[in-house]
Amino acid sequence: WGREQGRGSQGRQMERNSELFTLTYGALVTQLCKDYENDEEVNKQLDKMGYNIGVRLIEDFLARSSIGRCQDFRETADVIAKVAFKMYLGVTPSVTNWSPAGDEFSLILENNPLVDFVELPDNHNTLVYSNLLCGVLRGALEMVQMAVDVKFVQDTLRGDNVTEIRMKFIKRIEENLPAGDE
Amino acid sequence: WGREQGRGSQGRQMERNSELFTLTYGALVTQLCKDYENDEEVNKQLDKMGYNIGVRLIEDFLARSSIGRCQDFRETADVIAKVAFKMYLGVTPSVTNWSPAGDEFSLILENNPLVDFVELPDNHNTLVYSNLLCGVLRGALEMVQMAVDVKFVQDTLRGDNVTEIRMKFIKRIEENLPAGDE
Repeated sequence: WGREQGRGSQGRQMERNSELFTLTYGALVTQLCKDYENDEEVNKQLDKMGYNIGVRLIEDFLARSSIGRCQDFRETADVIAKVAFKMYLGVTPSVTNWSPAGDEFSLILENNPLVDFVELPDNHNTLVYSNLLCGVLRGALEMVQMAVDVKFVQDTLRGDNVTEIRMKFIKRIEENLPAGDE
Repeated sequence: WGREQGRGSQGRQMERNSELFTLTYGALVTQLCKDYENDEEVNKQLDKMGYNIGVRLIEDFLARSSIGRCQDFRETADVIAKVAFKMYLGVTPSVTNWSPAGDEFSLILENNPLVDFVELPDNHNTLVYSNLLCGVLRGALEMVQMAVDVKFVQDTLRGDNVTEIRMKFIKRIEENLPAGDE
């Protein structure tokens, strides 16, 4: 919240921590799994919710980071990884696996804070548990005139060694068109 | 997450921030409002989810804060306000309105981070939007053998000047009984 009033007397261990966020996110996913018939629908809902969050979060992000317009997709990738992920999730993914055309890259998360303590039940093996993040990225970037495709291609929850989010630049959105809403 | 790797190059404004948590919590409440018939049911669900979060969060809290058993309810109140709220929500409520018997107090929040940007729609005027917090407190304290009653008695969302959470000590739970689950 940026209204931090200095560390408490307990020192370092008082560092803000997002266990409460992680567990609350888990409650949200659990609720959606109760509400919707299959993982596919839950994944869609998470993406949609994330989109709506992203279109609101971008304003907070631009105000707080004082970051201006990115010159190209490479700069966008760096800002997402080094500033946005750090700010909201406390981790810095690496940016890698660029496509030769420079229109696709991957964010590699060694640790995905959303999945601390999570294990997917056997009957949810197509659930993309953290899919909200894809929606957030898509929604936020749309508000700065960038249409992107975002999806998980690796997930530690499904046994992969790392979590990999793949981002593909689709097009620059004309400024005079109203931004979409979902 | 306590794995903070030092501030980024952007300095102070890189401070972790929980806008993403606030908006995600909003998505959870919105979903519950779609799922349940009335505010009463939503309030109950939020409390129940919070309880389940609290019984898990306490372990993280005890490990991270290095806080031992509290001597009395007054000490518990201080730890909740100055350590737990600070750690997980970044705010420090004041502890006040003690009952003469010392078994009840209030946590007063000048700013409730969960309600940033929130406005209750007219048709949800009995919704206790942040009720998850009551459940978290109840669940966490139950795990340290304290049965408490927790409820919101003032809420800025409903036009009150501050947010007030009232906590009442009910009893000490015998250690040899298994802690309840919901």
